[in-house]
Amino acid sequence: MQHKNLPFRQAEYDNRIRKTRVAMQDAGIELLFVTDPSNQAWLTGYDGWSFYVHQGVLLPMDGDPIWWGRQMDSIGAQRTCWMQDDSIHGYADHYVQSSEHHPMQDLAGHMRARGLDKARIGVEMENYYYSAKAHAVLVQELPEAQFVDATALVNWLRLVKSSEEVSFIRKAAKITDKIVKLAIEQAEPGLRKNELVADIYHAGITGVEGIWGDYPAIVPLTPSGLDATAAHLTWNGAPMRKDEATFFELSGCYRRYHAPLSRTIYLGKPPQEMLDAEQAQLEGIAAGLEAARAGNRTCDIANAFIGVLKKHGIHREGRCGYPIGLSYPPDWGERSASIRAEDQTVLEPGMTFHFMPALWMKTWGLETTETILITHDGAAETLCDVERKLFIKD
Amino acid sequence: MQHKNLPFRQAEYDNRIRKTRVAMQDAGIELLFVTDPSNQAWLTGYDGWSFYVHQGVLLPMDGDPIWWGRQMDSIGAQRTCWMQDDSIHGYADHYVQSSEHHPMQDLAGHMRARGLDKARIGVEMENYYYSAKAHAVLVQELPEAQFVDATALVNWLRLVKSSEEVSFIRKAAKITDKIVKLAIEQAEPGLRKNELVADIYHAGITGVEGIWGDYPAIVPLTPSGLDATAAHLTWNGAPMRKDEATFFELSGCYRRYHAPLSRTIYLGKPPQEMLDAEQAQLEGIAAGLEAARAGNRTCDIANAFIGVLKKHGIHREGRCGYPIGLSYPPDWGERSASIRAEDQTVLEPGMTFHFMPALWMKTWGLETTETILITHDGAAETLCDVERKLFIKD
Repeated sequence: MQHKNLPFRQAEYDNRIRKTRVAMQDAGIELLFVTDPSNQAWLTGYDGWSFYVHQGVLLPMDGDPIWWGRQMDSIGAQRTCWMQDDSIHGYADHYVQSSEHHPMQDLAGHMRARGLDKARIGVEMENYYYSAKAHAVLVQELPEAQFVDATALVNWLRLVKSSEEVSFIRKAAKITDKIVKLAIEQAEPGLRKNELVADIYHAGITGVEGIWGDYPAIVPLTPSGLDATAAHLTWNGAPMRKDEATFFELSGCYRRYHAPLSRTIYLGKPPQEMLDAEQAQLEGIAAGLEAARAGNRTCDIANAFIGVLKKHGIHREGRCGYPIGLSYPPDWGERSASIRAEDQTVLEPGMTFHFMPALWMKTWGLETTETILITHDGAAETLCDVERKLFIKD
Repeated sequence: MQHKNLPFRQAEYDNRIRKTRVAMQDAGIELLFVTDPSNQAWLTGYDGWSFYVHQGVLLPMDGDPIWWGRQMDSIGAQRTCWMQDDSIHGYADHYVQSSEHHPMQDLAGHMRARGLDKARIGVEMENYYYSAKAHAVLVQELPEAQFVDATALVNWLRLVKSSEEVSFIRKAAKITDKIVKLAIEQAEPGLRKNELVADIYHAGITGVEGIWGDYPAIVPLTPSGLDATAAHLTWNGAPMRKDEATFFELSGCYRRYHAPLSRTIYLGKPPQEMLDAEQAQLEGIAAGLEAARAGNRTCDIANAFIGVLKKHGIHREGRCGYPIGLSYPPDWGERSASIRAEDQTVLEPGMTFHFMPALWMKTWGLETTETILITHDGAAETLCDVERKLFIKD
């Protein structure tokens, strides 16, 4: 067998598979087809930029999981999955991005060959990598199967991190610290945004002593001025300007694990309403961190934060955060729980969130966020180490 | 109205909308719902890293297209789309990544409000950003609508580029030249791969004189040795080693337009079979470029290349390329035509492809590729300018 450089010990993967099978049993699922690249990696170790073609992990109730994907990527699966090569299947290239053949025809053949074509099959209906067409073809190919929506079944199991996973996130956080501090230090009027982003990338991929940088699942978000009133605009070649706020929403990445952080810098003298909002935001974050303790619920964090804002006369709706950890593009959120008023998820030690109490106002944006770890007792631990405030360069 | 920094003139967008409506009419589609971020950008200019939540462009047969997405991203749409603000709709945050509400419920409401709930609606069934669940909810919400698979309807219209688009791809190619040359220059035994990738990112985002670098839709692919026998493994912190081949598959990006290129370097003395394969590959590429002329078909390129390989005793299956241009993650290919034996697409001037005649063998990978432009007469023009050969550092 070839040498494999797996991120985790076999016992960790075994434990994940065991937990997943319990969840499958609870949901009445006999065969799970996992397309989310993060879930694939979590279960098998698979790691490659091949999710732009159909691929996935088949998990039956017994035996090893099966990685299934494009033939040329099955070589990558042999090199990155913990399973033996006979648990890795590749499909022929004529299935790729064709209007005449669909990879799900090949997958259905595998299921038939294993006698699973009448099974109760769990599929991730809500996933970037399980298209409407993929589902339609699979249903058509397996008329006797019963399909069960298994969206986020694995994602929920990822919510509480193992100590090994937390150590990965701590490593990512060290990279995050480095790149957020660099962005704040370098920001100045006249600096072209793409040049700053180039430096952020360089520092993030270089990493820190002994910790090499992987690609984050979201590119650096660094909008200024009115662009910062929108949440997700990317950079361009325009210079930074005086009298504008810029937020940096960045994450280091270590072996696909993330620790996002946002800080905002104002070049010049900020308007008083922004300084007032900063105080409200900081007080709200402190209240949120206090509420972020085992036994409380995700909504308690959101309500604590929003309650403080309200007291200061600031109206804020929407989500205030999401779980983070192992992720692939296009999102570093885990898409299970949310930190928001209507979410009742009970917090447990080992959960990690991007607590995201950002403010996007009419003429400026103020993002100050934290990656947090729910601990055994007390308020949440913040995993990054960048001063929490609105930075100002006058 | 606020200042907008659109990549193209209004006449170009108008022309794209006109072409799309002709295609809709041919397909019997009254309302097109476009989820592919590249198609959204092509039609409206929308540009933001927000495709990890549901969003799209609604194109009826009359009037301006409508951008629809998450409320916080509608601010970004106001800043990047050419349409007026009243053609931009945002949905509330409780629809986001919820198991109780789905954004398609909101979208269906818009369609009903416009009297389009009984229309023939085209949807991109095969797209990362149109999930099985999204389709199921939309169908359930609009029982009287007829749904038509409009997968790649817009992608096919993007196949022939305007002269403005070609000039963007030429700019991207200048960045590609810079980063591929840098990678080849720096590669040496002992250099950690992540440090090399950090430099590649830095150079790519910095760009070249007057051309700022955007993020490419695929991260730098730079595998060495056995990892290079797999097509899509990403980097890690291991040092480059003597007697290994490394391929670099990289693209510069200018305002979302790409020009991918691959070159391979061998650190040491390559095995004779690799040198032989290099000769076959170079001869095959030359034959492919000769075949890549207006009036020929995409399969002619593939067959010309594969024919030469066969003559040299090398068996090569699968795709040998795909159209490129405007793209968002996870793929810089356009997912319409393919350069492969079974594809009969007739080549026209203005088409641009990543001609991808790579060889992935048992113990090494040899990627030598070109971004090509089909011209009015003669063989295809190669848009990058890096010597075409296996690079060797002994």
